[in-house]
Amino acid sequence: MKRTEIAELGEFGLIERLKKYETHHHDTTLKGIGDDAAVWKIDEQRYGLLSTDLLAEGIHFDLSYTPLKHLGYKAIAVNVSDIVAMNGYPKRAVVSIALSNRFSVEAIEELYEGMKIACERYRVDLIGGDTTSSRSGLIINVAIEGEVESRRITYRNTARTHDVLCVTGDLGAAYIGLQIMEREKQVFLANPEQQPDLTPYDYVIERLLRPEARLDIVEELRKRDVVPTAMIDISDGLASEILHLCTQSGTGALIYEERIPIDRMTYDVAINEFKIAPTICAMNGGEDYELLFALSPADFEKVKNHPDIVPIGYLTHPGEGTYLQTRGGNLVKIEAQGWNHFKKL
Amino acid sequence: MKRTEIAELGEFGLIERLKKYETHHHDTTLKGIGDDAAVWKIDEQRYGLLSTDLLAEGIHFDLSYTPLKHLGYKAIAVNVSDIVAMNGYPKRAVVSIALSNRFSVEAIEELYEGMKIACERYRVDLIGGDTTSSRSGLIINVAIEGEVESRRITYRNTARTHDVLCVTGDLGAAYIGLQIMEREKQVFLANPEQQPDLTPYDYVIERLLRPEARLDIVEELRKRDVVPTAMIDISDGLASEILHLCTQSGTGALIYEERIPIDRMTYDVAINEFKIAPTICAMNGGEDYELLFALSPADFEKVKNHPDIVPIGYLTHPGEGTYLQTRGGNLVKIEAQGWNHFKKL
Repeated sequence: MKRTEIAELGEFGLIERLKKYETHHHDTTLKGIGDDAAVWKIDEQRYGLLSTDLLAEGIHFDLSYTPLKHLGYKAIAVNVSDIVAMNGYPKRAVVSIALSNRFSVEAIEELYEGMKIACERYRVDLIGGDTTSSRSGLIINVAIEGEVESRRITYRNTARTHDVLCVTGDLGAAYIGLQIMEREKQVFLANPEQQPDLTPYDYVIERLLRPEARLDIVEELRKRDVVPTAMIDISDGLASEILHLCTQSGTGALIYEERIPIDRMTYDVAINEFKIAPTICAMNGGEDYELLFALSPADFEKVKNHPDIVPIGYLTHPGEGTYLQTRGGNLVKIEAQGWNHFKKL
Repeated sequence: MKRTEIAELGEFGLIERLKKYETHHHDTTLKGIGDDAAVWKIDEQRYGLLSTDLLAEGIHFDLSYTPLKHLGYKAIAVNVSDIVAMNGYPKRAVVSIALSNRFSVEAIEELYEGMKIACERYRVDLIGGDTTSSRSGLIINVAIEGEVESRRITYRNTARTHDVLCVTGDLGAAYIGLQIMEREKQVFLANPEQQPDLTPYDYVIERLLRPEARLDIVEELRKRDVVPTAMIDISDGLASEILHLCTQSGTGALIYEERIPIDRMTYDVAINEFKIAPTICAMNGGEDYELLFALSPADFEKVKNHPDIVPIGYLTHPGEGTYLQTRGGNLVKIEAQGWNHFKKL
């Protein structure tokens, strides 16, 4: 029998190949694989949403520098982010945890404490799950159910040429936070006596360890009566998300380097301590959990004064490709790098 | 900081302790932790259901004798069983898989093929998920969403004294199947040349590797206009499920050993090859995925001729305790043993 390595296909290639196993029995199911959450019709006014995310120790988190309470918070937040990307509100979540006996009951409680804080913050009912042992490591899977008004749903594949492309907050910080923690871990392993002072890096570390889902943006858009023509959350880096949105919508894009929002600390640490271009962190770093969305020019007028919504470019005809215009005026083709958890193996 | 071992509490003790992290923001949420699935109100006629189950390699399955296609089938079936236990119909499922690079793309496809077959069988839309790497072993998490008519929902805690206690199908077969496979694995390890003939054990092995959810019973009950007063699926052994149902409903129970349905092959292999009382297999073995439910005497009349619904006793006043009356006429107190995946570590 032929043996194809997972790494040959990559994560997106694998998802593409697994699409053929999708099944469809219910006419109420509107969207399956290929968006941030699955979608079905509840009634004329409401759509239901379902999404799931698995976090595995050694792949998605390193417990040598990740407090369990933060990890619990993050496990909920990244799932809320998938519901938010559909312009919806989370309602209920179920949690599966597999862990070995090196974890105590108190450790599990720390994890749950963090999940509970996130559930209070995002108004999620934590209503069940499955707790079991594993032979090694900690696995956390969250499945989340939510709801969206049918007229407000935002898919990935419905953006249009000439729409304004916007992002929320700032990008690249979680990636720099990861570089800091990995560096300090090596320092600590070499010299366990030395306690690092992480105060100068507080913002980027918080962005890594305790990200927020932008549920506030869903609320802002609703208040201003704005519905993006397409939306996606930025979990794998801006480049990868732009390509998803453009490929699925059948458009090109042109974005401007100078418009990409990068926090001052991210910028300084990237350049001074890691010699990485901050734009690279924003484009190819992951785990920011900000939103990328497309707005009609009329809708953009309604949000352009919002301090946390930043226009970075616009959508073009498909033949025009997807490009970044650098500060120096050069056009660079946008290519996906993103996280690829299979390459790390 | 105090360190409490998970094994000190056991699975049910841990679940009890984690209940305090349940959150509640939505009045539509009707049932959280403590039943086979979480429940919420969709509208006056319909309730939504959500459940999740995680299967971990080395804990829930052994790939040395579990074909991946069967495993995929089982991962869906055990989740459907949770929806069935609420008297509901499954609608949509999302799947998370974590696996190491010892698995090829073709192996993942085998797993998905099995999931697809189960989804066709139970009319489930397989609509998304998360695929990632793990440092070791295979983890499969399924989250399933379903629906039930509000007037037909069956909780665990609503059975009443004098109700008839029924089970479906036969019990203990999966446990005997597991004993066979573990025995043959040892034989094989000792002498890899020897190919075991498993034909004489086909039924019990199939019950272990490829269990079915009793969605047909939900349909039967609906046709006969019968609503159990309480229902639970038998995943941890009959004893454990009877105790859940009685404790939560505030009743006692008396069941008759001679009424417990046990298949002929299960019976013979248990006695002749493993010297175990077949009743012990039914009471304390797990993974049969049959249903245990309570019926009012009037409703019992409507199903008593069904070949696959077997009355095993009745519910008593809480002060009377939960007892098994043996063939010899002795009364034995029912105690939970069930699976405890933490004890195996």
